[in-house]
Amino acid sequence: MTILDGTPARTLRLDLEYDGSGFVGWQSQAKGRTVQQELQKALRRLLQQEVTPMGAGRTDAGTHAVAQVAHFHTNNGMALDRLLRGLNALLPEDLSATSVVSVPDDFHARFSAQGKRYRYRISPVRVPLDRHRVWTFFRPLDLQAMERAAESLRGRLDFRAFCKALPPPDHFECHIEAAHWQQRGGELVFEVEANRFLRHMVRILVGTFVEVGLGKMTPEDFSKLLSADAVRSQGGQTAPACGLCLMYINYEESYGGRSASSCGQRLERLT
Amino acid sequence: MTILDGTPARTLRLDLEYDGSGFVGWQSQAKGRTVQQELQKALRRLLQQEVTPMGAGRTDAGTHAVAQVAHFHTNNGMALDRLLRGLNALLPEDLSATSVVSVPDDFHARFSAQGKRYRYRISPVRVPLDRHRVWTFFRPLDLQAMERAAESLRGRLDFRAFCKALPPPDHFECHIEAAHWQQRGGELVFEVEANRFLRHMVRILVGTFVEVGLGKMTPEDFSKLLSADAVRSQGGQTAPACGLCLMYINYEESYGGRSASSCGQRLERLT
Repeated sequence: MTILDGTPARTLRLDLEYDGSGFVGWQSQAKGRTVQQELQKALRRLLQQEVTPMGAGRTDAGTHAVAQVAHFHTNNGMALDRLLRGLNALLPEDLSATSVVSVPDDFHARFSAQGKRYRYRISPVRVPLDRHRVWTFFRPLDLQAMERAAESLRGRLDFRAFCKALPPPDHFECHIEAAHWQQRGGELVFEVEANRFLRHMVRILVGTFVEVGLGKMTPEDFSKLLSADAVRSQGGQTAPACGLCLMYINYEESYGGRSASSCGQRLERLT
Repeated sequence: MTILDGTPARTLRLDLEYDGSGFVGWQSQAKGRTVQQELQKALRRLLQQEVTPMGAGRTDAGTHAVAQVAHFHTNNGMALDRLLRGLNALLPEDLSATSVVSVPDDFHARFSAQGKRYRYRISPVRVPLDRHRVWTFFRPLDLQAMERAAESLRGRLDFRAFCKALPPPDHFECHIEAAHWQQRGGELVFEVEANRFLRHMVRILVGTFVEVGLGKMTPEDFSKLLSADAVRSQGGQTAPACGLCLMYINYEESYGGRSASSCGQRLERLT
């Protein structure tokens, strides 16, 4: 692969952490500050050439990531450790690059991804220090009922009832690798890993779990929504974006393996 | 004790959590938004009378608290659970009350305190999601040397080298109950508990530990600063306020005991 002047180009993979509070999302758009645009601006300045970082997935406005992945092509031969330091010196304080590695040319952050994990946090009390990272929900929730509902999230299922209507995706099937609720430090935490996610899928799942937690829906009602016969209006509300965090993305080892946060342990402890 | 119209007054103790980023500190002052003023404003509206909440200690601008304590007197007989809910409905999102209890009339948040614990977090890498809660310090630090220096913080010591010059305190002696560094999830974390703290004391201690961590000062040099012969200029810089968090305050059981964060476990996990 070559770019512009014939110098051999490299494909580079970037792992990124960001606080979604100040972004209107990942994807570049006419209005508002996006992660992709901030990244592109810093790379342009550092590499002195126009590159277009492609992300593994579009996070919503307000949604966080501790290990998002993007790739781009460049024929700038800068050493990778210098590139990482230089990039972090140029990125705004709510966005950082945790690693940069050279990957095979056929790597694509989105199409090479084998799966992703998201976490959603609900706090039953106000938590000033974490207020941008949780959904503060005061009414009592029946965690056991929510756990039972989560048990129906196994294997290949149809998520048309848990998907933003427009734009419609190619299809509604996602393969769920893991999904569970747990109580952690006073919070209710949902984690879900799947081969792909539809738009707003995790947030609508959480909004529907909350219906179960409030007793307005049974775990059986919940499981019936995982069907090609269900419709969006049968699901719950779309939970707020701020409670959601992209935890990691899985890739083959030849592509650098699972994305990692700035410190493997931090992922468990702090987010 | 009575207030105004002769109705018997109660002394109430409030436990508070706040994100210090948006405050110029605890103490009411002419300019800038303070925790005390926001609290007073909410209490005035809720209780329909002027009360002056007195804090256990003044946190600096940007410094956080997961379990600060304040007290005030009121002859409003509102039930305590209603008072707590009402107060939280009126407080801004970066400040919350985690509990309110009735205490003996001689309780004073500051003078009844038997000791306090602070935590200071240093991150060696940029952490967008936690950037307001850590001091991001890129140069490598020798943690073992810092741990050895911390061993000299035992018992009653003179902290004049670790105190903001003005205004001068009554005296410079503080009794250290515990002080240690540890590595947690990629961060260096200092915890210190003492009967009292001087102004900027924890931040100057951390700035001086960093001198030790950089090899510019030995643990022995550090220990020599804990003396009535030392002066402020021999200590290190004042570390940034944002890395500091007030963890809890100790009181006798009759005064409600140790202050607690919104959830005991959260204190360990999230801050």
